[in-house]
Amino acid sequence: MTPTGNEPTPGPPQEPTPTPESEGAQTPPRRRPGGRTARIRRQVLDAVLAELGEHGYDALTTDTVAARAGVHRTTVYRRWGDVGGLLADVLDAAGDDDWQPADTGSLEGDLTALNEEIQTALTAQPPVVTALIAASFRSEKAAEAQQRLWEDRYARCEIVVARAVQRGELPPDTDARQLLLAATAPPYHQLLLLRTAPDPQLPARAAKTAALAAAAGAFAKPRSTDGE
Amino acid sequence: MTPTGNEPTPGPPQEPTPTPESEGAQTPPRRRPGGRTARIRRQVLDAVLAELGEHGYDALTTDTVAARAGVHRTTVYRRWGDVGGLLADVLDAAGDDDWQPADTGSLEGDLTALNEEIQTALTAQPPVVTALIAASFRSEKAAEAQQRLWEDRYARCEIVVARAVQRGELPPDTDARQLLLAATAPPYHQLLLLRTAPDPQLPARAAKTAALAAAAGAFAKPRSTDGE
Repeated sequence: MTPTGNEPTPGPPQEPTPTPESEGAQTPPRRRPGGRTARIRRQVLDAVLAELGEHGYDALTTDTVAARAGVHRTTVYRRWGDVGGLLADVLDAAGDDDWQPADTGSLEGDLTALNEEIQTALTAQPPVVTALIAASFRSEKAAEAQQRLWEDRYARCEIVVARAVQRGELPPDTDARQLLLAATAPPYHQLLLLRTAPDPQLPARAAKTAALAAAAGAFAKPRSTDGE
Repeated sequence: MTPTGNEPTPGPPQEPTPTPESEGAQTPPRRRPGGRTARIRRQVLDAVLAELGEHGYDALTTDTVAARAGVHRTTVYRRWGDVGGLLADVLDAAGDDDWQPADTGSLEGDLTALNEEIQTALTAQPPVVTALIAASFRSEKAAEAQQRLWEDRYARCEIVVARAVQRGELPPDTDARQLLLAATAPPYHQLLLLRTAPDPQLPARAAKTAALAAAAGAFAKPRSTDGE
């Protein structure tokens, strides 16, 4: 449930390796594991994360990223276009994993584990995840990629609700997405917007709140009269 | 509970009125109702809101604000310093009101009314409130003022919980702030971060979720062993 599954793992310094590109500009190819294209992509995206964590959005340019990644600036420019394109690809790459929510045996346990992951990501140093979310207020491309990532993460989390329904913890007509949003909203609200100090009790309390309300039917889907 | 109580109400166009200032620079005087200082402050802050709503943070400069407000640029520069100082004063001024949460007779009703106000503010056009919150990711001064405003608003809302305790709806040891944060986090999360379309059911559902959990004791304060 962390907004980015990939932590910044800047590799060893690389020699600059200018790479003439033949693909269409600004459409980063996805998933070519193992090849030079994939290796350069990883170097560049790691450099974005490292620069973002250390210096924030304002210092982020295609040139500083290229220098840190050890690739030619025209490679970065041609493949990603601009900072928004780089951030969008970082976020898209973060979704390219096999993350699944923890299976602890209870709804409250699963939601607590999820919120612990969120709280850990939002309080990590360097603050890469919060910097990415902040950047989504600056760049429309980053905002769209952040939305895609969250959509994918919340979709993967729906199994938590399905398991609770199977165990008989929840009514079968529970709206999984609404329950998940209610459970996970408090850590985001407090850490990103209100900027309060991390509260070690919050992940469990927000999970308990949502689980109690869900068991009481607060997230029952409306009767399907409009095709839902 | 709206982050800013003052909607942008740009006054009629004013002649430029250069005003030599004798106060110390960059410390906006607060609350001198009626005087020229107060009038100029209102003109300038209205101009900030109008510019922010129409053009967003990136186009905001002390010069454009001065021009729109019809005051001399040095007035703006001396009194507010920079864009961060202007935004901080807008947020501080927004807290200078007598806003109180609605008293509907039930906890769920009060929380629903609160969330309706939040949802209305976050979906208003022009998007002044969301632009101010977005700006708090850009300017440390604005971030601090936004935190002050939220702290004040949440403090004012605690009466909602006190009334529910008096009515016997809630256990007396309910942590008001935690309940309020849980109730109001979902609209902020969905509209500001996830950027989903406004859900007309959300204000009531989030209120119901928090009220159900609160009645079940989810927000009981810990036994005071550490001075709390």
